[in-house]
Amino acid sequence: MLSLQMNLCSYSSLLSKRMVKCQWNFKCYSISPSSLFSSNTNTTTIRAFASSCQQLNGASSISVAGPHNPLSPISGSMEQVMVEYLFGRKKATEVAHYVWKHVVKKGDAVVDATCGNGYDTLALLKLVADETQRGRVYGMDVQKIALESTSSLLDQFASPDEKELVELFVMSHSQMEDIVPNDVAVRLVAFNLGYLPGGDKKVITRSETTVLALEAAKRILAPGGLISIVTYVGHPGGREEFEKIEDFASRLPIESWNCCKLHTVNRPLAPMLIFLFKR
Amino acid sequence: MLSLQMNLCSYSSLLSKRMVKCQWNFKCYSISPSSLFSSNTNTTTIRAFASSCQQLNGASSISVAGPHNPLSPISGSMEQVMVEYLFGRKKATEVAHYVWKHVVKKGDAVVDATCGNGYDTLALLKLVADETQRGRVYGMDVQKIALESTSSLLDQFASPDEKELVELFVMSHSQMEDIVPNDVAVRLVAFNLGYLPGGDKKVITRSETTVLALEAAKRILAPGGLISIVTYVGHPGGREEFEKIEDFASRLPIESWNCCKLHTVNRPLAPMLIFLFKR
Repeated sequence: MLSLQMNLCSYSSLLSKRMVKCQWNFKCYSISPSSLFSSNTNTTTIRAFASSCQQLNGASSISVAGPHNPLSPISGSMEQVMVEYLFGRKKATEVAHYVWKHVVKKGDAVVDATCGNGYDTLALLKLVADETQRGRVYGMDVQKIALESTSSLLDQFASPDEKELVELFVMSHSQMEDIVPNDVAVRLVAFNLGYLPGGDKKVITRSETTVLALEAAKRILAPGGLISIVTYVGHPGGREEFEKIEDFASRLPIESWNCCKLHTVNRPLAPMLIFLFKR
Repeated sequence: MLSLQMNLCSYSSLLSKRMVKCQWNFKCYSISPSSLFSSNTNTTTIRAFASSCQQLNGASSISVAGPHNPLSPISGSMEQVMVEYLFGRKKATEVAHYVWKHVVKKGDAVVDATCGNGYDTLALLKLVADETQRGRVYGMDVQKIALESTSSLLDQFASPDEKELVELFVMSHSQMEDIVPNDVAVRLVAFNLGYLPGGDKKVITRSETTVLALEAAKRILAPGGLISIVTYVGHPGGREEFEKIEDFASRLPIESWNCCKLHTVNRPLAPMLIFLFKR
């Protein structure tokens, strides 16, 4: 998977500033790196459509692996979630989702820099989707298995109209500027770092590309927007990545950025929450 | 003022486990250390009563120095305050007040370990006070000028019935166990460290006594209770105190404590918020 990432990066470099998008088909998982790209300079929107879209209602009747029930990704009150988090009864990712709810509006454009199993992508989609069909979620991951999971989750919990708003790319988050059109004001860029839950733990986000991705996110983010980061220190390279991120955040000027960190200090391997608000 | 603290500590040691309380009178500021104590072994409740208690309504008509309007210490939603804090538009102390609101109930016993100018004392009083008159706020500070300010604030913004619930002590927070009766379950212990705003900046909380105070708070806190700490690193000794507190927090077992830290990483001298929840 790492070699795939390298291939993609090299290929992307060759294509220079062309937008590189992959044609995604829910029914066709055997996409080779070379088939991911079109030599056509026009952008081809890549959306995941299921052959059958299940519209499920009633959270209690289904069981979905993940940090929380994706059917109601951001319900309840932030008040409750913050206190539950402080009491150690809610996860960092859930706090992140509640913060997003207060930043992202219907019709906004947002970026999921690390799709993983798609829970963040779905949560973001629910925040931007409305009948105007103006919202956009640009999602990416270096692993195609991650985008398969994301696609599958969207098939289950997003309507066909909602899915029209999502574009998924097999690529490194450091190249997000290649896929977000220049005239799009991005309200939020979400990072959930580390390895793919349930996937190959050797395939991790790397501090070098993560910092490049943060630099890119900083450039495309609109004023009033948010870079949201959940970072982990429990795996090899995780501590270094966190320190690089913290260093990046600490250098942002207070006049134009407010950078907050939330952390459980007596759980050394607990995820860190870092929010970078652009004023 | 430091010598006053020393005198009080020595005197308190002499009195051993007797409850040491000072008779407070709003009209009499010239209290010498020796006159603060009664040799009577009975506890004398020290409450601040103003000769005239102003019951003010309408926040817009008055101006009060402090972090926020004490007339409505914990109004609005935590949701809004958390997001405003993350955006850099709300203070750490305000976030602390909102968290307290979710922990403290009417009729509870709470401790203000560092009264300062009394904003926390007042906020705590409003949380515990009701018609049952069961609530208690045990407030302390090593500086009598701080308790004068606290007393004055209570005179302005608390009713006589509410003020009956407050007990103020000129003493170190490390000795809080001397004043809280053994059978009282304490719901919250609040620390707002550093120096007295507007006071002598050389009189600061010290890491040694602060850690002793945290140990004491840990012993008297009821399950489900909270130790809330706002700590500052911008003054000499502040960084060391913060590090000692973080070390203390990181050693608390995760099975019985959840210790969270909130921090603005690109404002090096911003206050740190540390919440220690006892499960």
